Amino acid sequence: MTATSASPRVTFEALRDFIRAAFVIQGLPESDAGQVATLMAEADLQGSDGHGVIRLPQYSRRIQAGGINVRPDIRVVREKAAMAVIDGDNGMGHLVVSRAVDLAIAKARECGVGWVSTRYSNHAGPASLYARKPLEHQMLGLYFAVGNANHLPPWGGMEMLLSTNPIAAAFPAGDEPPVVLDMATTVAAYGKVKARAKRGEPLPVGWMIDREGKPLTDATRAGEGFLLPIGEHKGYGLALMVGLLAGTLGGAAMGRDVIDFNADHVSVTNTGQAILVLDLAAFGDPAAFGEALDALIRDIRGSARLPGVERIWLPGEQSHLKREAARKAGIALAPSLVSELDQLADSLRLPRLARLGEAGPV
Amino acid sequence: MTATSASPRVTFEALRDFIRAAFVIQGLPESDAGQVATLMAEADLQGSDGHGVIRLPQYSRRIQAGGINVRPDIRVVREKAAMAVIDGDNGMGHLVVSRAVDLAIAKARECGVGWVSTRYSNHAGPASLYARKPLEHQMLGLYFAVGNANHLPPWGGMEMLLSTNPIAAAFPAGDEPPVVLDMATTVAAYGKVKARAKRGEPLPVGWMIDREGKPLTDATRAGEGFLLPIGEHKGYGLALMVGLLAGTLGGAAMGRDVIDFNADHVSVTNTGQAILVLDLAAFGDPAAFGEALDALIRDIRGSARLPGVERIWLPGEQSHLKREAARKAGIALAPSLVSELDQLADSLRLPRLARLGEAGPV
Repeated sequence: MTATSASPRVTFEALRDFIRAAFVIQGLPESDAGQVATLMAEADLQGSDGHGVIRLPQYSRRIQAGGINVRPDIRVVREKAAMAVIDGDNGMGHLVVSRAVDLAIAKARECGVGWVSTRYSNHAGPASLYARKPLEHQMLGLYFAVGNANHLPPWGGMEMLLSTNPIAAAFPAGDEPPVVLDMATTVAAYGKVKARAKRGEPLPVGWMIDREGKPLTDATRAGEGFLLPIGEHKGYGLALMVGLLAGTLGGAAMGRDVIDFNADHVSVTNTGQAILVLDLAAFGDPAAFGEALDALIRDIRGSARLPGVERIWLPGEQSHLKREAARKAGIALAPSLVSELDQLADSLRLPRLARLGEAGPV
Repeated sequence: MTATSASPRVTFEALRDFIRAAFVIQGLPESDAGQVATLMAEADLQGSDGHGVIRLPQYSRRIQAGGINVRPDIRVVREKAAMAVIDGDNGMGHLVVSRAVDLAIAKARECGVGWVSTRYSNHAGPASLYARKPLEHQMLGLYFAVGNANHLPPWGGMEMLLSTNPIAAAFPAGDEPPVVLDMATTVAAYGKVKARAKRGEPLPVGWMIDREGKPLTDATRAGEGFLLPIGEHKGYGLALMVGLLAGTLGGAAMGRDVIDFNADHVSVTNTGQAILVLDLAAFGDPAAFGEALDALIRDIRGSARLPGVERIWLPGEQSHLKREAARKAGIALAPSLVSELDQLADSLRLPRLARLGEAGPV
């Protein structure tokens, strides 16, 4: 599924429009379809290609199986001045979380801080998209999510009671690109394991262990093992913390209740996410924060490197560069993915995704 | 510095009263001294012995050098409904953070969520103490702090621009003990490295690297190397995130501005911390949250274990058991620490710390 220099390229707009059309024909209202499509295409634009259009066939299977509500009544079910809980009515996660972020921004503007939890949401794509949304308002975003399949046992255990539960955080700088962290609490996300298996590559030691507790490096045997948390018991603690904040607190699934949405296209996942927004203007002068962060970024980037290290990166900097490059040169998609999307288009009786350099849809 | 079964034991009350007397004679008001002493003795009670009375000689050196304001005017300098920034006026960190937690609890009661940042604070002991405070109000606590010495370079670098910046989180269960996470974002806290050096023990591979990027296992050479972040670049990202939330956001020191308070007893540290409190009652029925967490705790504790693993622990469970045991049997202190405390008592013309089983102060 890896894109190479020989891979077909598409524009952001063509990709977005293709995804939107696929959702509209499957029953989503035009504006909802557009919102989901924009976020999915943004995922591909920034190189989060495990969370972009690659998920369209899976989402489509779930919609067609009745596992997603295409006309949800997304509504606030609990609310105080600085917080809310949103019930997503089993709609597309992108819609539910977008609503949550907008509400958290409004609350942060009023109260300095806003926290919104979701329940009955679904998989929503890359965490960084939602943590980044407050940036344009000179606000910070922190995002927590319960992953949509349990691949992580508690430390010392071998029952997969936890998921890769990601954390994302975004901080607006001044002249520098924002600092954007987006990380699973496991050493590797499960999507990376699947990608290695598809390419016939082994797993590095430290990604997974087998049921004897020994390193599992044969990617095709991934189903027999477990992901490892970062920092051993610490990553287990973080995954648990994120799950309690994003799941249990808002009344969403956690632990044994988590549905494996790769295997089950029908059951309501009751996915939970949580977004925290902090308004810089409440804490001081946002410009001063931007200057302080610019200085820190330059200190870090310009600091002495270990032998053999070419560059010190800030979190989010590589995605930033990928986004800039893909805006100019188009988004590269793996040939196997493009074939899969063509099949989906044919089955939905839609025009196929327009490649760059072609006159129009084929 | 390690306590053993042959170590002298003290009661919580004797330890607290000894610490309080030491602070009073050095100029802290009686009630402030009592508050700091209680928190420091609670650190020892729960086994956080790198953050308890072991710090008293260091705090005393700083107070005597004029590096701590013993009569601070701790005040709110920025405020909105759900947030505040507190200026600690260079007082003891325990006092500044306690004020921040109390204010965050009050704001959470009103708005559902409360966030309070500190600036001009100081080292405040174990993060978990502050994350735990909201528990008695049926609230969750999340705590972030900038560490008081930079021991961590950015990933790929060798300039120590970051600290071990800890995260703590506490969740109230029903019948089970609370889930309490308290972790540095490095594989090992620097105090653990110092303890190994004192005992003449090597460091495990993975704790530190030298300036060639190779594992550093000779603890006596710790000064020539750097701590490693958990999960490689991920822990670097987390340490940066925590530093921005706890330091930069509230106008406290971060990056190059961080003072090494082990080496410098005079400069104002401008330490920053941040506490986030979420009121369970705003999100739903607190009893239902407790039941859900109890069920999850029991699922985790009772789940299948890897070969050779005797027990699966929940975060905070070991501290909980240590606290219960030390309440009954007393707190064991390393003989070398007790000698150091005796010297401090003599120099301050205070009665020495009363050991358990003795008639009174010697």
